Amino acid sequence: MSGSSFGSIFKIATWGESHGKGIGVVVDGCPAGLTLNEEMIQTFLNRRKPGQTKYSTPRKEDDLVTILSGVFEGKTTGTPISMMIANETARSADYSEIASFYRPGHADYTFDAKYGFRDYRGGGRSSGRETIGRVAAGAIAAALLKELGIEVFTYTKSIGPIQIDYHKCQKENLTLSPLCMPDLEASQKAEDYLEQCIHNLDSSGGMIECIISGVPAGIGEPVFDKLDAQLAKAIFSIGAVKGFEIGSGFEVAKQLGSENNDGFAFDANGKLIKLTNHSGGILGGISDGSEIIFRAAIKPTPSIKKEQQTVNKSGENINVSIKGRHDPIIVPRAVVVVEAMAALTLADLLLSGMSSKMDYVKKIYQK
Amino acid sequence: MSGSSFGSIFKIATWGESHGKGIGVVVDGCPAGLTLNEEMIQTFLNRRKPGQTKYSTPRKEDDLVTILSGVFEGKTTGTPISMMIANETARSADYSEIASFYRPGHADYTFDAKYGFRDYRGGGRSSGRETIGRVAAGAIAAALLKELGIEVFTYTKSIGPIQIDYHKCQKENLTLSPLCMPDLEASQKAEDYLEQCIHNLDSSGGMIECIISGVPAGIGEPVFDKLDAQLAKAIFSIGAVKGFEIGSGFEVAKQLGSENNDGFAFDANGKLIKLTNHSGGILGGISDGSEIIFRAAIKPTPSIKKEQQTVNKSGENINVSIKGRHDPIIVPRAVVVVEAMAALTLADLLLSGMSSKMDYVKKIYQK
Amino acid sequence: MSGSSFGSIFKIATWGESHGKGIGVVVDGCPAGLTLNEEMIQTFLNRRKPGQTKYSTPRKEDDLVTILSGVFEGKTTGTPISMMIANETARSADYSEIASFYRPGHADYTFDAKYGFRDYRGGGRSSGRETIGRVAAGAIAAALLKELGIEVFTYTKSIGPIQIDYHKCQKENLTLSPLCMPDLEASQKAEDYLEQCIHNLDSSGGMIECIISGVPAGIGEPVFDKLDAQLAKAIFSIGAVKGFEIGSGFEVAKQLGSENNDGFAFDANGKLIKLTNHSGGILGGISDGSEIIFRAAIKPTPSIKKEQQTVNKSGENINVSIKGRHDPIIVPRAVVVVEAMAALTLADLLLSGMSSKMDYVKKIYQK
Amino acid sequence: MSGSSFGSIFKIATWGESHGKGIGVVVDGCPAGLTLNEEMIQTFLNRRKPGQTKYSTPRKEDDLVTILSGVFEGKTTGTPISMMIANETARSADYSEIASFYRPGHADYTFDAKYGFRDYRGGGRSSGRETIGRVAAGAIAAALLKELGIEVFTYTKSIGPIQIDYHKCQKENLTLSPLCMPDLEASQKAEDYLEQCIHNLDSSGGMIECIISGVPAGIGEPVFDKLDAQLAKAIFSIGAVKGFEIGSGFEVAKQLGSENNDGFAFDANGKLIKLTNHSGGILGGISDGSEIIFRAAIKPTPSIKKEQQTVNKSGENINVSIKGRHDPIIVPRAVVVVEAMAALTLADLLLSGMSSKMDYVKKIYQK
Repeated sequence: MSGSSFGSIFKIATWGESHGKGIGVVVDGCPAGLTLNEEMIQTFLNRRKPGQTKYSTPRKEDDLVTILSGVFEGKTTGTPISMMIANETARSADYSEIASFYRPGHADYTFDAKYGFRDYRGGGRSSGRETIGRVAAGAIAAALLKELGIEVFTYTKSIGPIQIDYHKCQKENLTLSPLCMPDLEASQKAEDYLEQCIHNLDSSGGMIECIISGVPAGIGEPVFDKLDAQLAKAIFSIGAVKGFEIGSGFEVAKQLGSENNDGFAFDANGKLIKLTNHSGGILGGISDGSEIIFRAAIKPTPSIKKEQQTVNKSGENINVSIKGRHDPIIVPRAVVVVEAMAALTLADLLLSGMSSKMDYVKKIYQK
Repeated sequence: MSGSSFGSIFKIATWGESHGKGIGVVVDGCPAGLTLNEEMIQTFLNRRKPGQTKYSTPRKEDDLVTILSGVFEGKTTGTPISMMIANETARSADYSEIASFYRPGHADYTFDAKYGFRDYRGGGRSSGRETIGRVAAGAIAAALLKELGIEVFTYTKSIGPIQIDYHKCQKENLTLSPLCMPDLEASQKAEDYLEQCIHNLDSSGGMIECIISGVPAGIGEPVFDKLDAQLAKAIFSIGAVKGFEIGSGFEVAKQLGSENNDGFAFDANGKLIKLTNHSGGILGGISDGSEIIFRAAIKPTPSIKKEQQTVNKSGENINVSIKGRHDPIIVPRAVVVVEAMAALTLADLLLSGMSSKMDYVKKIYQK
Repeated sequence: MSGSSFGSIFKIATWGESHGKGIGVVVDGCPAGLTLNEEMIQTFLNRRKPGQTKYSTPRKEDDLVTILSGVFEGKTTGTPISMMIANETARSADYSEIASFYRPGHADYTFDAKYGFRDYRGGGRSSGRETIGRVAAGAIAAALLKELGIEVFTYTKSIGPIQIDYHKCQKENLTLSPLCMPDLEASQKAEDYLEQCIHNLDSSGGMIECIISGVPAGIGEPVFDKLDAQLAKAIFSIGAVKGFEIGSGFEVAKQLGSENNDGFAFDANGKLIKLTNHSGGILGGISDGSEIIFRAAIKPTPSIKKEQQTVNKSGENINVSIKGRHDPIIVPRAVVVVEAMAALTLADLLLSGMSSKMDYVKKIYQK
Repeated sequence: MSGSSFGSIFKIATWGESHGKGIGVVVDGCPAGLTLNEEMIQTFLNRRKPGQTKYSTPRKEDDLVTILSGVFEGKTTGTPISMMIANETARSADYSEIASFYRPGHADYTFDAKYGFRDYRGGGRSSGRETIGRVAAGAIAAALLKELGIEVFTYTKSIGPIQIDYHKCQKENLTLSPLCMPDLEASQKAEDYLEQCIHNLDSSGGMIECIISGVPAGIGEPVFDKLDAQLAKAIFSIGAVKGFEIGSGFEVAKQLGSENNDGFAFDANGKLIKLTNHSGGILGGISDGSEIIFRAAIKPTPSIKKEQQTVNKSGENINVSIKGRHDPIIVPRAVVVVEAMAALTLADLLLSGMSSKMDYVKKIYQK
């Protein structure tokens, strides 16, 4: 097992290293008859592409996707959808030095400990480029969700000390901010903060929030495959994530039951609603029909020019400054990765929920 | 799929409802030759048993485990280990009223949405009693880890506003605190706080921290089955968890790279060490040889006597006060559940890591 | 992994040894709302119960099932269904001798090779009693199939040299034959043959055929999870099976394409039919709407009184005669085990097929 | 779920259609440190390549493999190995006609029934080209087995009425026979028989036998994941297989226990041996240290020029003659596919067996 597959019905298997021939993903279990083309995938991929602002690495990576199978006459066929993104600008020379020491905050040492050796070029399999496969697959999941009226909105909630409130900003501003921060004033402050980080040869952490609307009540499996547990795993599988919380999150530790519980009521139309949404849209691991809201804490880019202590292969304690062009922050490019993982998780649980009651089974098979 | 199984090699499948005939678990994939007996399991189960202090429900539940299979002459045989804990004091009468309305903060509504109807007695499958199966299985995982020199220590880090620092207290005090809070002064303050909650017909949230020592570097699978991602899922599968963080956790969002990275060094004996442990013992999803440290936020008990708004089956908006005897806090009894899930996750990844390199494969199969 | 679970959506996990406290199974993933009670399970279990005819061991085993969870008010709740059958007549004394040598044709040696030691009492986990869990679970699968108009008919096709033709006999005779052979004349001949086997201290092999009707076209997954591949695995997982074939089976090796292909036609009502059914109801791993027909070859009971060569734990070559009361043939009692495995396989693939097209997904989730 | 993945530890996911951009496979879970290069894969692929003899389709398909990831400096890295084989001679024109009718013996109808529509070009996903991915992955599994001293030998046992006996022929002749039939006299007779089939616009079935030597005793999981059950599934997942048997196979149905049981003995060196091998190397689903021997029955190529009855999309009953260049027999090209599936199954069970006892676990993790 090397852990590169995700999902039990809408299953994906990713592959590829930073400096190998390419990155790819096989999606197995997408229902037949979903409209799909390369443009839909590319739109997602472009959101994580580097070199678009000065806060992401100026490496030019076109990251063009090719659909290799599973789509015929513009629709999915129900068979595996294979997608590949070739690695173009493999400048292994830039990275050769890192073969000789362990970069702090990276997986160099742990890969060696696990496998005995590693593809050190650009981090190999532990590079951020690994997420390309997830994003390509997530685009398909998002398309499936859209057909069912479900939308996933993801944005940069904080960068260092600057934090914004979703309720006080406009979704439309998301694409106007180079940092995916839909409060443009805060976005500008965050840019200033990052300038300072760059100047100090340092990097910054931040937070991402995701809001999923339109999910019907009843999605998620009790006990181990709870919707929130699967989301937690999905989001924590993104390299730099160090924290995950849903609804009121860590705040609940200080709350009273009477503060935290969401009351139920029938609205004027007789529809069941929740009076508040501290639960973040999930009760007992199953969607409750409210918006699903979660946050992830993203650590600062570990590759910094500032000097750090580490060891080399000759057994010496040394000081290093990581060369090359690195993002001063991971968060803005990770926004679409979080969105992709949320979409993949939800698509998988929606499909697995189809067999939850005999009524559904009969709806499909009864003559 | 109903999501009641966990693990891919050390696999468990739990079953049982609050007021059915019992609760149980089948452990499939435990290596043969591990010393095991009912006492080892019972010791774990007793840590989650109610009625031991005034901060847990006074219901008397003996929760005695029987091993039904998979152990012969005091050792595991490699075949499934089935364990059962009979439900003794099933007082369905106490619960019959809840059939008619949805309890705020509980899964009553979402189970109905998913399955069309529900076993409403005591919460049925969504009851906290469901965790008994996990704890029984976790006891076996912990025994396996112990043979490899790995220990899991779990404690109550906070209750409402009272929070303690692990480094300033003694492990030994854990069992002296009725709240599993090894700082006895803080434990007393927390008791006072809970008294107040009970008096106000309310409940409190809190936080649990878990520290795992002795894990060799190299455990965990890259990409989707990262050690931290699997832990996140495992811990979030516990009903009341709303947040999970590892190492520096949500703090990283405000940190600089130079603050967050852990430097490497060789110590005086030439052993590779980390100079700090902000990573919480995991880099790139793989254990780095340091202590693994994570925290979980636990919401307040949703069952409170204080009046709340909800709806009934007749389509009316009503006010309810939850009757019966309920814990004013879940945290102390959840400590062993967190410990069990951590042990299960780690045991599974240790076993799956056995096939990570040809050197290991040859160590076992080469003649 | 110890391999005791089966299915990916309608999942079962079995446990228990011949002389432990009992045998059981947990069914995880049965849709909610299926009518279920212990009588429905017991009816299936009674078909494999020993001591009913002189061709099965005279051991008295009541094999009474208890449903421990997952059923409420006569219907499945969608949560795990746990069932247990206590072991009553554990006469370990009868079996203690076999601890000292390896029985030919049994798994004594291979269990020792795999696990280092074994529960030798009555074969432990490799005993035929292990199939009780499958049969109990299969009864639920069969009930689910029945609600969709699918029926599974299984019978003894041959015993030693006596073979019958399904088309020349009456289904109704199945229960009249002590050997589950619905051709009563042949059944009598088979009885005579078995008398002879008993007299010679020997045992006999045989064949089982299974016919599944009412399966809609389109069930099964291409490539690795083909309906026939899953059936092959399911049937071969029954201890004594040494051959499996579908439709024309091994005959195809000698056939021409023009003989083997089944032509298609529209019948008078415009319904698509196949002109023949050499395929046994499956094309490309997917049901084609015809009857699914397969056969399994069952080896003779390995426990025979006739003297055989083997080795003992003292390192000696010895001759043994297996003591105790053993069936001279496994086939009649295995009929219901084959039926159970067929039902489990089909139920699992029916449920997994629910997500095969967007039309189905929309049928369930579109508002 | 679309069923295109196989294995639980050494996992593969295949993709690709006959006339899409290519065929590929991702191998996830191969241990790190295995020597691997494209030549090793190509050697396997060349064995199934068409156009090499007059008994296989004269289509020119180079089927050149590219390793896209997972190998670094000549060794596997433990991360996913992605391989792709481009489709070169896509002559969709030849196949356009088949969009309008259902070919007898093919999966055209069942794919339509399952997915609502199909990629009809050359059979799409149900084409024999799908097996390319398996063979590429199987080459890696075979390399792993070889390092452990395990060899898989596979050959054509029969073609129509001509059948050979493995014990009476030389392994070395395998490559000298255009039909993979190591008895060259019989091979010539089979060629004559196939000439006759071609002349009659017809095709022939046949049988493949596989012998695996060097497997240690103790491989395979009891109950559902028995080594023989997994092999049965693996082999039955190959499109044209209609029967599978192990050891004495269907013969056991007519045998006595005293004929079928294999006695045990210690040989002159004190090594445990079996006196015969009717079991085909597997007892209770676990390898017994003898050669593993199984056979598969392969149906005749369904694409024949001879006229057959079928239906078209306009709702008419029609007669068709399948155009294009098709193999008069599948068997010789399927030999390596059977070998690949056997190797994949065994590699997966060998790796999963690593966690079967605490002795093994300690061998790897104990300091």
